[in-house]
Amino acid sequence: MPVPGPGYSITVRVEAPASSTAAGDLTTAVGRVGGVLTAFDVVESHPESIVVDISANALSENHAQDITQTLDSLPGVRVRKVSDRTFLIHLGGKIEVSPKVALRNRDDLSRAYTPGVARVCQAIAANPEDARRLTIKRNTVAVLTDGSAVLGLGNIGPAAALPVMEGKAALFKKFADVDAWPVCLDTQDTEEIIMIAKALAPVYAGINLEDIAAPRCFEIEKRLREQLDIPVFHDDQHGTAIVVVAALRNALRVVGKNIEDCKIVVSGVGAAGSAIIRLLLRKNPGDIVAADIDGIVHSARGNLDDNLTWIAGHTNKEQQAGTLHEALVGADVFIGVSAPNLFGAEQVATMKSDAVVFALANPDPEIDPLEAQKHAAVVATGRSDFPNQINNVLAFPGVFRGLLDAQAHHIDDSMLLAAADAIADVVDNGKLNASFIVPSVFDNAVAPAVAEAVKKAAKAAKAAQS
Amino acid sequence: MPVPGPGYSITVRVEAPASSTAAGDLTTAVGRVGGVLTAFDVVESHPESIVVDISANALSENHAQDITQTLDSLPGVRVRKVSDRTFLIHLGGKIEVSPKVALRNRDDLSRAYTPGVARVCQAIAANPEDARRLTIKRNTVAVLTDGSAVLGLGNIGPAAALPVMEGKAALFKKFADVDAWPVCLDTQDTEEIIMIAKALAPVYAGINLEDIAAPRCFEIEKRLREQLDIPVFHDDQHGTAIVVVAALRNALRVVGKNIEDCKIVVSGVGAAGSAIIRLLLRKNPGDIVAADIDGIVHSARGNLDDNLTWIAGHTNKEQQAGTLHEALVGADVFIGVSAPNLFGAEQVATMKSDAVVFALANPDPEIDPLEAQKHAAVVATGRSDFPNQINNVLAFPGVFRGLLDAQAHHIDDSMLLAAADAIADVVDNGKLNASFIVPSVFDNAVAPAVAEAVKKAAKAAKAAQS
Repeated sequence: MPVPGPGYSITVRVEAPASSTAAGDLTTAVGRVGGVLTAFDVVESHPESIVVDISANALSENHAQDITQTLDSLPGVRVRKVSDRTFLIHLGGKIEVSPKVALRNRDDLSRAYTPGVARVCQAIAANPEDARRLTIKRNTVAVLTDGSAVLGLGNIGPAAALPVMEGKAALFKKFADVDAWPVCLDTQDTEEIIMIAKALAPVYAGINLEDIAAPRCFEIEKRLREQLDIPVFHDDQHGTAIVVVAALRNALRVVGKNIEDCKIVVSGVGAAGSAIIRLLLRKNPGDIVAADIDGIVHSARGNLDDNLTWIAGHTNKEQQAGTLHEALVGADVFIGVSAPNLFGAEQVATMKSDAVVFALANPDPEIDPLEAQKHAAVVATGRSDFPNQINNVLAFPGVFRGLLDAQAHHIDDSMLLAAADAIADVVDNGKLNASFIVPSVFDNAVAPAVAEAVKKAAKAAKAAQS
Repeated sequence: MPVPGPGYSITVRVEAPASSTAAGDLTTAVGRVGGVLTAFDVVESHPESIVVDISANALSENHAQDITQTLDSLPGVRVRKVSDRTFLIHLGGKIEVSPKVALRNRDDLSRAYTPGVARVCQAIAANPEDARRLTIKRNTVAVLTDGSAVLGLGNIGPAAALPVMEGKAALFKKFADVDAWPVCLDTQDTEEIIMIAKALAPVYAGINLEDIAAPRCFEIEKRLREQLDIPVFHDDQHGTAIVVVAALRNALRVVGKNIEDCKIVVSGVGAAGSAIIRLLLRKNPGDIVAADIDGIVHSARGNLDDNLTWIAGHTNKEQQAGTLHEALVGADVFIGVSAPNLFGAEQVATMKSDAVVFALANPDPEIDPLEAQKHAAVVATGRSDFPNQINNVLAFPGVFRGLLDAQAHHIDDSMLLAAADAIADVVDNGKLNASFIVPSVFDNAVAPAVAEAVKKAAKAAKAAQS
């Protein structure tokens, strides 16, 4: 089922005979071993030979090697060099720090730096809130991780997490003109992380926690929200929850059901699953039944930590026990943020008619979406090669844009729900169908709509407090 | 002695009668109260009146108000608005975070972010040193402060220090293409600062400590140098020391003396003074005599902390006691990084002939440079409105450029001395004179020369270790 994609994309420079069939031989060879040709550039041409850059998408690193070896084994062909196009993009990092002010001459320097800067420092010392006006704090967010739960890769540490955090920072700027900076901490101690985040706060107007393992992430987020006067948002929790709630609203529009009547099964009660459950509860669902590796979560199950105890107490009205498969029987909605290949089409068949299945485990979903489609009315995944991609990029840039524009000191569920509604509303009735329940990641309307909704909610929350 | 400068620069929008003398009346008024007119722009012109933007440099905030009031009191003139041009430059901060990669479409996203980024993460997890190749670590430096000794303003805290750190980051990029990021810590506890700097290190290839009070700065720098595998440089110490050593080399070329024969008096034994003394000792001076608020530093003085004990043990060969004025008698060189107005021309007269005086206290030097010139052959200050400005901008951008290019894991005096020589060498014999012992801050030759020298020294140090 996986298809070659740009995540494994190579450019192979080969020397080949200058025959009339050379190009055809090369491109055929790529296709024969399953590579997808994306570019063919002749870089040198001689009477007897040509040098060609062949770019192709592959399935995996091994597959990329197969392609290279196949080319090299063609008669008269020699591979000179193989470039991994993904690695090329990352060389030297993906973001940079640029001056916004000219520093051409002595006058510029005297205003932007010494001696002029001293007056700006004094103004902030006299009125600390001025930092939001006179410094980068106005528009700057920390993307903070301890590298303990990076993508699907697990605990790979802060240095190996940096390429993800840089990518996130680039997306923040691209989609919402937010200046975001990677903070990859070489500690996984909860108290140290909290202490450090607090110490770093003067430079930032918000903190985006990222890829921090549960349950540590809950404690860190809770304590930082209590102790800091800038909003703290854990994207793996709240970003995912926002997009799931948005997608579910539109999926239920497609099948014509009300959430108040729906039984929703959530598989996975880590960071994402817990946040999805908490945010869905604000929408008054018929019932939610959560399940993890030990089966359905219910109060009598024993060995429940604080998070699971709370979930058991707020979901599963009938306190059903049993397996995930048992939970699915008669359910309207499945939302998975857990593990690959947990069930098949036969379990979807036990769900209510017009079932909605969000199988979001990455890279391999809880159920093959093609299998799910046999019995479900709407299917979504986290993958880009299937319709209805549930992608946090729809949420986090606009959420922080709105928080920054409102100069918000805190974030609460009203802002998350406003963001979800804004995302859902971008898909109007003319576009909505079972294969289009969320807007494209590249839809320029999304981030501004989310920002506006979050800003409004943040200002309302501020007004309610004062 | 101070003159109006761009650090206090205002633009006043006034409405004035449309008479033939209006412009003259306005500009004359600015000059009458001591303002320096820098621009005069008519923004609206009506039959009866004109609207003009008058830009002027002032001495101080009060002086800027005087100028404004003087304009407002002219017959028929009304001030509409006053803009402080220094504050305008700082609005919203002076740096931004920009993507270096295109994120136009799905393919870009797949390579720069998920799923492609996972392979880059795995490569770094397998070989952490790859972070210097595949992430921003390759070119990124932390500008780290606790806000405890900011410019001449003292302990104004991390938020108020941010405008300086942003300015420094802008200078790093402008002069040496280094990506620098402000880290303003909301703690002044030595152990916490050390712990935080260590935890932040994965993202950075160097740390520039900035505006941290002595003696805390010594301990922080020493411990971080021991425990981190990236160079740690305290600009207030080493940046100042580099430029002073460079300037002194050229000053002694001007007066034709050898440092081995010179008695050098250093006033101030905080961060800058101590570092200057330590680096000068590498040049085998005839003698150094240090003085602070309690007079000459000597081993029998009592109440010496670790730093002063070391200085007393390595300077002052005759263990002279007494006052700064007594130290100056017979000295060849005075270097002040201490306090304003400590002595006058009569003390300079007691120095050896062809005396060199570096009066670097900011904003007001140890001696008025015009007074010093009466008896000294070469005079330098930290001020931009006097020849021979000793400015760290000559050092820090090139130093870090060189360290980054060498992928240096450590920094030592060999690199500082190489930087000093490189700066001094930019002033060739054709340009060298008593009023030109250091290159201009805007001389584009300086940073590349410093970078090349530091890179070479860093590579030599690496080679010597392996």
